[in-house]
Amino acid sequence: MKIGMISPLEMPVPPIAYGGSELVVSLLTEELVKRGHDITLFASGDSVTSAKLESICPHLLRGSDRDKGILTMLNVVSCLEQADRFDIIHNHTCFEGLSTAGLVKTPILTTLHGGLKGDWLTLFAHYKGWYNTISWSAKSLLPEKERFVGVIYNAIDVKSYPFNGSKREPYLLFLRRICYEKGPHLAIEVAKRLGRRLIIAGNVDSVDEEYFRTQVLPGVDGDLIQYVGEADYHRKRELLAQAYCLLAPITWPEPFGLFLAEAMACGTPVVVFNRGAAPEVVRHGETGFVVDTMDEMASAVEEVYRIDPRDCREHVERNFDVPQMVDDYLAAYERILSESRSPIVTEILTGPGRPVDSGIELALDAGGSDRVAMSKN
Amino acid sequence: MKIGMISPLEMPVPPIAYGGSELVVSLLTEELVKRGHDITLFASGDSVTSAKLESICPHLLRGSDRDKGILTMLNVVSCLEQADRFDIIHNHTCFEGLSTAGLVKTPILTTLHGGLKGDWLTLFAHYKGWYNTISWSAKSLLPEKERFVGVIYNAIDVKSYPFNGSKREPYLLFLRRICYEKGPHLAIEVAKRLGRRLIIAGNVDSVDEEYFRTQVLPGVDGDLIQYVGEADYHRKRELLAQAYCLLAPITWPEPFGLFLAEAMACGTPVVVFNRGAAPEVVRHGETGFVVDTMDEMASAVEEVYRIDPRDCREHVERNFDVPQMVDDYLAAYERILSESRSPIVTEILTGPGRPVDSGIELALDAGGSDRVAMSKN
Repeated sequence: MKIGMISPLEMPVPPIAYGGSELVVSLLTEELVKRGHDITLFASGDSVTSAKLESICPHLLRGSDRDKGILTMLNVVSCLEQADRFDIIHNHTCFEGLSTAGLVKTPILTTLHGGLKGDWLTLFAHYKGWYNTISWSAKSLLPEKERFVGVIYNAIDVKSYPFNGSKREPYLLFLRRICYEKGPHLAIEVAKRLGRRLIIAGNVDSVDEEYFRTQVLPGVDGDLIQYVGEADYHRKRELLAQAYCLLAPITWPEPFGLFLAEAMACGTPVVVFNRGAAPEVVRHGETGFVVDTMDEMASAVEEVYRIDPRDCREHVERNFDVPQMVDDYLAAYERILSESRSPIVTEILTGPGRPVDSGIELALDAGGSDRVAMSKN
Repeated sequence: MKIGMISPLEMPVPPIAYGGSELVVSLLTEELVKRGHDITLFASGDSVTSAKLESICPHLLRGSDRDKGILTMLNVVSCLEQADRFDIIHNHTCFEGLSTAGLVKTPILTTLHGGLKGDWLTLFAHYKGWYNTISWSAKSLLPEKERFVGVIYNAIDVKSYPFNGSKREPYLLFLRRICYEKGPHLAIEVAKRLGRRLIIAGNVDSVDEEYFRTQVLPGVDGDLIQYVGEADYHRKRELLAQAYCLLAPITWPEPFGLFLAEAMACGTPVVVFNRGAAPEVVRHGETGFVVDTMDEMASAVEEVYRIDPRDCREHVERNFDVPQMVDDYLAAYERILSESRSPIVTEILTGPGRPVDSGIELALDAGGSDRVAMSKN
């Protein structure tokens, strides 16, 4: 299949440190190439890929003073201008890809990596292509709209995470970008209440500096509560694999949460607030605990010893590893191509008034092991 | 000719008060309809036009909390998605039209109403359509690029401005949006130095409130220096027609300056700083004075009695009235259509290495009376 893959430009593909979308784009692209597909990746020029790389800007945009809006749009347009070369275009940007999709004949799939509100919903209503979300939670926040190809969960390269099935260090771990939405201030509160050691690792974006200074740093004493800065590739795996558990007191509807999968891949249980996709990613009582209150979070930490690290690892291997994600995207591409070729047949098959996607969505979800069961409980 | 006309959405077409682009779009659209062309206007829903109106948002966006970027893009895309219906598309937006022009086959003309810098120049370099500027000054600030169809000056509906050929009031007038770029603080300085009365009329946008409060208001004493707020349609004409002269101490390269033409249409001389298009719009010594320093501006005000109001009016009638502007745009449309039909012939005619536009640009400029002579001195 000839595929135009459009990445955001915030980070190169794969990202240097954090950059969830670019990581997923990289894993998907490399596996598709490995399976013999012809991929052209539209991404920043410092990306490393076995696909053909096309770049309208040489370096990642995060932290640069270049105009992100203009360059991201040019990146999308440079793909759309050669749309005839591709069987399908897979768009991972939001505004730029959603707004322009109706201008080319090649079918477009947009993966919605984040949420939409306000006039973004107006934009979404006008969008002419297909779309998927990365969780049922993310789907539930959107209005009904045709051309939904299903939920396709994000993936990590599980084998790149060390599994620790034996002795662990006693510290709790917070490992994410430091911002209000991820809740490190709440992690501090839980750790203090329990008198347990907490290690906080993560970068601080400039917009979050005041939050970090006023709500996180005052709680850091260098003893019980430690802040170790941003963890690189190896340090992240080391911290994850040794932790007693990962604390994820998220304060917003996280659309997926790659970091939850990363922890579980290392055999590390997760204690997470019941927001967004958390109950889809973490199996309550099997790979961690999905809780509603601070009290419950504190109690759950004391129950973490009951979780078997092997269950954590196996859960991620079964549901959030690269081959499954790529199977799902390929099935979505095939479905889109078949619908684009014969829109009338599709309409007859699905019947009037019934969402075009419902039948095939089930097929998609049923594709791998226990992935359907996971989606609702 | 079937034309898709894309307006910005900041103001309706025509604008309620200030809104230079929307005013030009309105005058152009109405005259094209009058001449029998089939125009579809893509503008805010509160626009009033004899063309077909298509709107993706019901009201103007200035002062609203809606997302201007998303809605302006949807406005452009709603035109481009039906591009096949039009012989030509005339785009008056910037980012949205420049970025997407390469995605449709219908030729697109963009009128650059403002300047471009930074990554806007990257965007401009990628732009696939034709373009015009509204002055030679604006053209001189752009890099060389093919598909330039020439300078087409903005126009006003001259007959809607009252001509005053006789007695005038002794006040100097500043009539524009109140902001640093237009220089009302310098107008105050000139008036005070001369001991002459100054009337300041204009709206203050929220971004300019601090400038207004700290650099304009302290100079307003209600006697020698008066601020009368925003002037509506009639009050504006009254103020312009009665003024001794218009003071325009602009501090930036104004790409055209409709307000200069409006004053001269009333027979009112203009004293303006030599920036941007000022020397193209005002004839030094004939319709006002184009000066370089505050001293020169003060001296020039004392020479204004030498200017004949009839020269001012006639200058605007000859060069900045609607029929001339519409003639120029129609000539540009015809040229673009002929170039789009036979790109190879055009290339042979203009020869390798020579800008595609140079020959025809002259023809365009020579089209009306003394419009070429005016462009440089």
